[in-house]
Amino acid sequence: MAEIKFILTERNGNARAGILRTPRGEIRTPAFMPVGTAATVKAMLPESVREAGADILLGNTYHLMLRPGAERVARLGGLHRFMNWQRPILTDSGGFQMMSLSAIRKVSEEGVRFQSHIDGHEEFLSPERAMEIQRLLGSDIQMVLDECIALPASPEAVEKSLARSMRWAKRSKIAFGIQPERACFGIVQGGTLPQLRRRSAEELMEIGFDGYALGGLAVGEGQGAMFDTVDATVPVLPTDRPRYLMGVGKPDDIVGAVLRGIDMFDCVLPTRSGRNGQAFTRSGTLNLRNARHAEATEPLDADCRCPACRHYSRGYLHHVVKAGEIIAAMLLTWHNITFYQDLMAELRTMICEGRRESWVLSWKAGSSRQE
Amino acid sequence: MAEIKFILTERNGNARAGILRTPRGEIRTPAFMPVGTAATVKAMLPESVREAGADILLGNTYHLMLRPGAERVARLGGLHRFMNWQRPILTDSGGFQMMSLSAIRKVSEEGVRFQSHIDGHEEFLSPERAMEIQRLLGSDIQMVLDECIALPASPEAVEKSLARSMRWAKRSKIAFGIQPERACFGIVQGGTLPQLRRRSAEELMEIGFDGYALGGLAVGEGQGAMFDTVDATVPVLPTDRPRYLMGVGKPDDIVGAVLRGIDMFDCVLPTRSGRNGQAFTRSGTLNLRNARHAEATEPLDADCRCPACRHYSRGYLHHVVKAGEIIAAMLLTWHNITFYQDLMAELRTMICEGRRESWVLSWKAGSSRQE
Repeated sequence: MAEIKFILTERNGNARAGILRTPRGEIRTPAFMPVGTAATVKAMLPESVREAGADILLGNTYHLMLRPGAERVARLGGLHRFMNWQRPILTDSGGFQMMSLSAIRKVSEEGVRFQSHIDGHEEFLSPERAMEIQRLLGSDIQMVLDECIALPASPEAVEKSLARSMRWAKRSKIAFGIQPERACFGIVQGGTLPQLRRRSAEELMEIGFDGYALGGLAVGEGQGAMFDTVDATVPVLPTDRPRYLMGVGKPDDIVGAVLRGIDMFDCVLPTRSGRNGQAFTRSGTLNLRNARHAEATEPLDADCRCPACRHYSRGYLHHVVKAGEIIAAMLLTWHNITFYQDLMAELRTMICEGRRESWVLSWKAGSSRQE
Repeated sequence: MAEIKFILTERNGNARAGILRTPRGEIRTPAFMPVGTAATVKAMLPESVREAGADILLGNTYHLMLRPGAERVARLGGLHRFMNWQRPILTDSGGFQMMSLSAIRKVSEEGVRFQSHIDGHEEFLSPERAMEIQRLLGSDIQMVLDECIALPASPEAVEKSLARSMRWAKRSKIAFGIQPERACFGIVQGGTLPQLRRRSAEELMEIGFDGYALGGLAVGEGQGAMFDTVDATVPVLPTDRPRYLMGVGKPDDIVGAVLRGIDMFDCVLPTRSGRNGQAFTRSGTLNLRNARHAEATEPLDADCRCPACRHYSRGYLHHVVKAGEIIAAMLLTWHNITFYQDLMAELRTMICEGRRESWVLSWKAGSSRQE
């Protein structure tokens, strides 16, 4: 089986374009990973996600360990076969969801004991178990377990948590072992404190990972603080490894982060917004629930290639959103995933053709309107 | 524009196979019409409904008049364009849903005044308005407005209601006028009383319709009483017009009715069951929610050509049903619609090849198991 390999093909300013080669297929970077939480990108068939342009999906360790369970997925042939997606899958480690979804949890040096938000049963997740779960799922890119603390927190608390995350990163890497056909990514923590972020990056590089993620961002700190943190961290990271900004984000966040040297993203925004009747366009977001769309004969976006835009009027989309029809979630999710993938494709082209400055001007002129 | 024309191609016993030619495409009979209540076959893209084998959809006048409104659909280009289905559409007249969905209604000779079950606003539906709505929608096969009385009812009440339905049928036909490229179907009423059914059929034939439906059945009278009523009615009906058994039904109901000379069917069962985690197979129904499917690696139905059966294990379907994921409704609806369409195709072939008796034996051997 071939090995995972990252090839940087172009640079333009700090922005970079490349290819992450995996035995299951190539991931063109900058890449956006649609979120397939519970072994499904909600309201989409996997072949449609591919048709929209995705090279890789994200799966959630937390959700999958609770239901249907990692061992069960393994017995059913692994996550790729289970959910009918043969291309690469990245799995997170569960750290973030334990914080955001489980009301009752107890963190120790060993790991986290927590209650399932589904049925209340008790679970335990350690760095070793997080890696075991990801191996059972058959994930192509596995993330170390990190401690995600609630913000705001004192610098001392952030530092203490960071130190634990670094010890957990080391244990995760040891548990991952040697799997050349799979990748293990470290996660840089440190809140919005530049010196902690840099220290975290350096400690991770000493352990040595196939890629470096920035965790603990996009949690309410604001775009400015997030970009500052990216700016403080990226120069420390090795140029020959992919950089992944976890949980980001709005189209404008992604554009800004790509310009700052980030290669990979994931976010529930395109799927969740789609289920809520919201659509992304180049001139801002549209809320299809709005009565002004009720008799609109024009498509959502005349330039978009997705089925929602090719076959339906805004009036139809308004109707099915208002009526709570499943097809509304199906069509708007498809549109939003297509929008995100087309944006990534455009960013890659922009980088390869060295058109960064003019492209950014036209982007800024467009994407401000919200509804 | 071409005219609507029904061509009977084969008979085997009372069963018949034919083609209903319309300007929007041919409908192979016996035909099952998936229900597209509110301008969508729930959880399906229309191209998938077609791929499953459907020649025609059913739309609901009651639902569409309340939301988004018939005039609005007309302004948005008519129902076909609105919902992206260019093949034939049959619309019911709203009579049945007014009875089953609106809590407050007042029936007079003129028509029915009722409250919307969505927002309580008052609406009025007369035979003339029912036909106007169906014309605004652009329906290819339009149904007369009939009075659907609640059962059980006394023979006198059934007779009185029937007499009104026949007066409304005449008014509906006059309102329909002359539209050679569209069809207008009458609806035989009369409860389970054979003499009333025959009288109803004869009165409708005097008015003259392009097809004849049997209404007021599949409302709890039981399969035996339903088949008896079909047996009593069909011999009175003209052989050169399609016969449509409204709201039917389970696969076994459809098989029995086809053997009795029925040509067209509609039912929410395949779509509604799909959303509830239930799947039809040749050996009975499966409830995917059942824990015994949790680790089943085999497909739902190894002989089925639908995506749910080609790409997923029963274990996966169990998982997404339990997790309440939209893809569960998408996949199981697709499967059920495919099952129904494949059953209709098999019935047509059976009739054309004169294999009725042997086919019925093998059907009865299979389809009894329920879960």
